[in-house]
Amino acid sequence: MAKQLGRRAGHGGEDPLQPLRHSTAHLMAGAVLDLFPGTKLGIGPAIKDGFYYDLETPRPIVPEDLGRIEARMREVAAADVPFERSEMPRDEALRLFAENGQDFKVDLIRSFDRAEGADDGTVSIYRHGGFVDLCKGPHVERTGRITAFKLMSIAGAYWRGDETRPQLTRIYGTVWPTQKELDAYIDHLKEIERRDHRVLGRDLELFRIDDELGSGLVLWLPRLSVVREELESWWRRVHRARGYTLVYTPHMAHERTYERSGHLEKYGENMYGPLLLDEGTQRFWIKPMNCPGHIKVFQSRIRSYRELPLRIGELGTVYRYERGGTLHGMQRVRGFTQDDSHIFCTWAQAQGEIGKVFDLAMEFMRLFGYSDPVIYLSTRPERRLGTDEMWDRAEGALREALGVREVPYKIDEGGGVFYAPKIDIKVRDAIGREWQGPTIQIDLNLPERFDVTFVNEKGERERAVMIHRVLFGSLERFVGGLIEHYAGSFPLWLNWEQVAVVPIREDALEYARSVTARLEERALRVHLDEPPLADMRERIREAQHRRASYILVVGGREAASGTVSVRPRGAGKGEEERGVALDAFLDRVVRERDTQQLPSDFSPAEPSVGDAVG
Amino acid sequence: MAKQLGRRAGHGGEDPLQPLRHSTAHLMAGAVLDLFPGTKLGIGPAIKDGFYYDLETPRPIVPEDLGRIEARMREVAAADVPFERSEMPRDEALRLFAENGQDFKVDLIRSFDRAEGADDGTVSIYRHGGFVDLCKGPHVERTGRITAFKLMSIAGAYWRGDETRPQLTRIYGTVWPTQKELDAYIDHLKEIERRDHRVLGRDLELFRIDDELGSGLVLWLPRLSVVREELESWWRRVHRARGYTLVYTPHMAHERTYERSGHLEKYGENMYGPLLLDEGTQRFWIKPMNCPGHIKVFQSRIRSYRELPLRIGELGTVYRYERGGTLHGMQRVRGFTQDDSHIFCTWAQAQGEIGKVFDLAMEFMRLFGYSDPVIYLSTRPERRLGTDEMWDRAEGALREALGVREVPYKIDEGGGVFYAPKIDIKVRDAIGREWQGPTIQIDLNLPERFDVTFVNEKGERERAVMIHRVLFGSLERFVGGLIEHYAGSFPLWLNWEQVAVVPIREDALEYARSVTARLEERALRVHLDEPPLADMRERIREAQHRRASYILVVGGREAASGTVSVRPRGAGKGEEERGVALDAFLDRVVRERDTQQLPSDFSPAEPSVGDAVG
Repeated sequence: MAKQLGRRAGHGGEDPLQPLRHSTAHLMAGAVLDLFPGTKLGIGPAIKDGFYYDLETPRPIVPEDLGRIEARMREVAAADVPFERSEMPRDEALRLFAENGQDFKVDLIRSFDRAEGADDGTVSIYRHGGFVDLCKGPHVERTGRITAFKLMSIAGAYWRGDETRPQLTRIYGTVWPTQKELDAYIDHLKEIERRDHRVLGRDLELFRIDDELGSGLVLWLPRLSVVREELESWWRRVHRARGYTLVYTPHMAHERTYERSGHLEKYGENMYGPLLLDEGTQRFWIKPMNCPGHIKVFQSRIRSYRELPLRIGELGTVYRYERGGTLHGMQRVRGFTQDDSHIFCTWAQAQGEIGKVFDLAMEFMRLFGYSDPVIYLSTRPERRLGTDEMWDRAEGALREALGVREVPYKIDEGGGVFYAPKIDIKVRDAIGREWQGPTIQIDLNLPERFDVTFVNEKGERERAVMIHRVLFGSLERFVGGLIEHYAGSFPLWLNWEQVAVVPIREDALEYARSVTARLEERALRVHLDEPPLADMRERIREAQHRRASYILVVGGREAASGTVSVRPRGAGKGEEERGVALDAFLDRVVRERDTQQLPSDFSPAEPSVGDAVG
Repeated sequence: MAKQLGRRAGHGGEDPLQPLRHSTAHLMAGAVLDLFPGTKLGIGPAIKDGFYYDLETPRPIVPEDLGRIEARMREVAAADVPFERSEMPRDEALRLFAENGQDFKVDLIRSFDRAEGADDGTVSIYRHGGFVDLCKGPHVERTGRITAFKLMSIAGAYWRGDETRPQLTRIYGTVWPTQKELDAYIDHLKEIERRDHRVLGRDLELFRIDDELGSGLVLWLPRLSVVREELESWWRRVHRARGYTLVYTPHMAHERTYERSGHLEKYGENMYGPLLLDEGTQRFWIKPMNCPGHIKVFQSRIRSYRELPLRIGELGTVYRYERGGTLHGMQRVRGFTQDDSHIFCTWAQAQGEIGKVFDLAMEFMRLFGYSDPVIYLSTRPERRLGTDEMWDRAEGALREALGVREVPYKIDEGGGVFYAPKIDIKVRDAIGREWQGPTIQIDLNLPERFDVTFVNEKGERERAVMIHRVLFGSLERFVGGLIEHYAGSFPLWLNWEQVAVVPIREDALEYARSVTARLEERALRVHLDEPPLADMRERIREAQHRRASYILVVGGREAASGTVSVRPRGAGKGEEERGVALDAFLDRVVRERDTQQLPSDFSPAEPSVGDAVG
């Protein structure tokens, strides 16, 4: 039951910039009141990277207004007036805000009466200049402290998030201690936008979601299919070399399977079905997870302890229902392929198996250039299945696997899922964003429900341990993430176009063809414009747009000397390497490809046990 | 809309053995009447390879009775009595059979009155010895001609196939002109039984159909998954090298897609769905075919004539409803993966593209050892979509593609599907059974329905030609067939266990490990028993049972000399090759693997156009 992985929601914690950010929200609300008298104030908290304020304005605020509001904010900031706190009896505050027509504040004060039992009869308010707000603080001392801010966007929000109440205008802004930090943040946002996999996906023709076919269902277009195929075949090689046996299981199963597994009861609202067969007497569901199929493979005959650990892996496509509004490119979809594996083993083997999975997971992340791994061990939650003894054992195995590696990890007490404790690895991408990476769980539910056993050394049936693990997680999500991580420029081994061959003129075409043939002999993916229709500069621009890893420009001189002019991706105009012998280029590019794919320090494969499935 | 492929039902035609077979049915019925007086005769026709007779007997016939019936048949055959025809007025025949209590014959004569208008008032009957039957003949002259026969099995059959009428006992038999032919036929049946993929699938742990998971849904177990993975990755290489672009498309689509394609209307009863989403406002169906997804890939942007032909391929898993009673191992299933491709091109390119597909298809069949290809060109049926002009063009393209190759083919007039003419290739397996092989169709429906166009040289939108093709057909069906074709002994390149290493004693284990490592360096799939638990003979038997392509026996002598003792699969006890240098074996086995996979005369790949998808 490993979860669909993905970018992790930012978590709260204490933000030292909170007073600055909240003060800027006040500054903005004051500016809006100055420019739009009669505006009613909702709430205006500090949030991650900035703040917002919900407002009801006499006329709708449009993006063009933001500049004027910012200008007014700067005036008040330059005036360097103090933020002043005072306490006021509740009744007085109610009268004050009611007189000013601030109905939402009145509503808030009234709700304090109800919600907060320990009310001492006063509320705190903050003022700066002529602006007054109901507020707990703290704030910065004076408005002059607010220098590096920017209003970002406008959205709608219901008062108290309740769609039966008035809709307010929410203005988002960001603020930083220094202009430099603000600039860096704006650059970061532009970088995020530039890397958006939905934008690159369209621009580079990587994937498509077709409205007629259905939202949340990804069509992998030819280029990205090359990336996926490389990833899949590499994944298979790596896993076979580590003693995994790979299988294929169907995408649907009879209802009784998911009744037994508990998926229908616990997860049914996310499942597609039922499909009625045989005049409605048989009910099938689309699989949301691969576990039951792998259990059936394990149970295809009676297993002996000598066969354990049995590591069953599959690139298994599952379908889960997501509401239309939550869908997001390749990263939140309705159908996706998991690199799913289930390891069946004894308790004595569990720690070792978890350790191997952990090492492989860390290596995977490193290989793709994800950095700063943070490891979480999530322990038993309040509501859970299984005995305390089982949880002790399972948590112990996870803990010890990490312990012998002497890696630092954080404990997320009670953060396990109801059927399993787990290890999560979180990593940062090329621009520092945190992503959910691999997950390892010990399942305490399915082995019981499906009575998963093996015959132990004493000839008795014994319950097997079942480890779930995903490394990529969802291929859709992982590859969508890679598009952003690599900004569309995939490393050589994954790239759809490893080499573009650009003949300078028609007369170099024959040589260009022979260069292409030589490259293809080495299993490189080559693009040759034939016939060369556009002028050379345009063809080079197109090859750059396609993100070719290398552009080889060939003309008469190269043909005569058996060389190529090499322009690596990202190299400037003058950085072309001229007169490179074709053989030398071939060796270099093949070596680069093979090194990327299997770095020399990639942890060695296991000895032969289990390599053949015979 | 390429069909699920598979073994072809035997077709009728005139069988010169028909009189012999029908006479033997009479002989059998007479014997049953002799042994079970009061038996009522149903019908007893000649069929492929033999005959049957449907009978209502005073007590149930059991398999143990067959020997007695055969013995009685031999007595009457030895008596060499003549088969005598006579004509008899209908009324007289009715009286005759009614007097003898032959109610079914009475029923038959009455039905002739109704069904056959041109009744001249007489019926023909045949007698031999005391047996009399309503029969058109012809028969052999005397019972002495019947020498080489055998009763095969017993089944139930409703009178006139109507389950509201009495159930009769059907006895099947076979008969041949000579004992030699009978023996050969019985051997052939044993061979079919021995090769039955359901039996081998269980015995060799190749696949499993789990009742709880659902019938008709195949779990590929580890060994057969190796075969599938090799086939798939080879299929991808071969297709990429021939300018195909490969994609991944989802397994479900919104109802409107299949309304537009016409699948729901024409094929809906075989489709799984609907799946209700978003409170029942959205209806999805599981894909029964990959075509709409590939059309969406083609339409992911406006296409220029310069991009054509665009060959879009996928190993796409589809689901189709089959009734429970018709399911058969891997060969008739509810979910299967097609090696599906759709080629989008101009009419000018169509013939060339079909020719290339045809050549590849023939090469595929040859490569897997299927022989005696017979080619059918199926033309426009009575009920069809599209204009005569379109059919002329499409049939012409298929015809010319075959014509330029000067291959003989048969025309199946009117045998096309309602939306497409097609080429079918039928082949024979290792024991001479005919199978449905690759299919090539030109679709005259979907390009219209989905408005599939490209921009031609004049800058105008033009309708694209869409060629459907499958080579394997269904991977489940094809691989199920391969199990039977190879009798479970897959060729080296596909085999799950290419080499088994068997150390003679514990002290040879270290050398066995180093041999294993050397083999694995060359990407061979190796099985090493470690530790060696059973005795050597038993381990060799187990390796033979697992169908290892080579068994290497290694002991002290081999370790000292750096050699191995090689026992190729199928070699007898004395045929072990001793003292083979490990390097020599390595080279030999790698060469064998690589040659099998890509025979030297495999038609060369296209030039580079389209090899990169950039």
